[in-house]
Amino acid sequence: MAPKVGHNSQAGGVAAGQLKAFVERIERLEEEKKVIADDIKEVYAEAKGNGFDTKILKKAVALRKKDPAEREEEETILQLYLQALGMLPQEEDDI
Amino acid sequence: MAPKVGHNSQAGGVAAGQLKAFVERIERLEEEKKVIADDIKEVYAEAKGNGFDTKILKKAVALRKKDPAEREEEETILQLYLQALGMLPQEEDDI
Amino acid sequence: MAPKVGHNSQAGGVAAGQLKAFVERIERLEEEKKVIADDIKEVYAEAKGNGFDTKILKKAVALRKKDPAEREEEETILQLYLQALGMLPQEEDDI
Amino acid sequence: MAPKVGHNSQAGGVAAGQLKAFVERIERLEEEKKVIADDIKEVYAEAKGNGFDTKILKKAVALRKKDPAEREEEETILQLYLQALGMLPQEEDDI
Repeated sequence: MAPKVGHNSQAGGVAAGQLKAFVERIERLEEEKKVIADDIKEVYAEAKGNGFDTKILKKAVALRKKDPAEREEEETILQLYLQALGMLPQEEDDI
Repeated sequence: MAPKVGHNSQAGGVAAGQLKAFVERIERLEEEKKVIADDIKEVYAEAKGNGFDTKILKKAVALRKKDPAEREEEETILQLYLQALGMLPQEEDDI
Repeated sequence: MAPKVGHNSQAGGVAAGQLKAFVERIERLEEEKKVIADDIKEVYAEAKGNGFDTKILKKAVALRKKDPAEREEEETILQLYLQALGMLPQEEDDI
Repeated sequence: MAPKVGHNSQAGGVAAGQLKAFVERIERLEEEKKVIADDIKEVYAEAKGNGFDTKILKKAVALRKKDPAEREEEETILQLYLQALGMLPQEEDDI
């Protein structure tokens, strides 16, 4: 198989200018993405500074992305499994 | 241990307004981050459409982040290891 | 910095025999690990074939690794957060 | 959708004994997997103690899994890209 390289050939058949342009666009976007990722960390740090538990906050954010009905069904099944595994506090009656 | 929750208490001692504000800031930032991640994928797709190998392009982008001297040293050591493992084409002389 | 290579030197100062021995031990162990990872997948597949929901089963397995008291506390805080975020079904009374 | 749970019902329709058996098999296998993962770490630590660079050793192990021809082709393309990006030491002639 021939190396998949660009047109408007230069060194080794690689379109150097085009390749550089792609790489620079990627690097710029990755830099922006990193800035936002740092912003997210800062919000969590600020929330922690205000007494919130960041691990559980993260879980709440994840749960918000789910469909409520689906989330509730999953929770119900999980409770059934935990009960079957003896992982829930004993109760007088069934759930 | 008492639940780590916020001040200006409402339901269960959680500062609902403050919590909502944090969650909404996080969700907005995550949305922005996703847009940028999609942009990056698009650039790679465009590069692929222009004949570049995206897996190797990704590798080149990663290598650009390294210090050139360090990168070269690592490459030298890798070549020594590959040679010792018989993974390089046989040569008349040593490297 | 000199390349960190082994003693009893051969090609390029790398102890080829020693390196090969390390690599072969690693490969053998990785192979064993893969076999076990496949076994785990098979158990999940078998559970699924018996009507269990594998995603939730995975969650139950993860929860079993936690200290019950810690797990319960986290669950309590999560419920507070979800309630504060209006993600729980409305109730007459507070939790 | 009805909760996907097992037969030979007990609490909540979950086959508790069957569920426990699956969970215990999974936990046993995960424990074995962890032991092997620790063994792999130990081999790397031992290699490091003998002067090998573990990060590069890891890379060599990964490269061994690839088809030599494919690996060589990828390396060739990578070199073309790095050259086009001006990341290789200047040479008198082209590659």
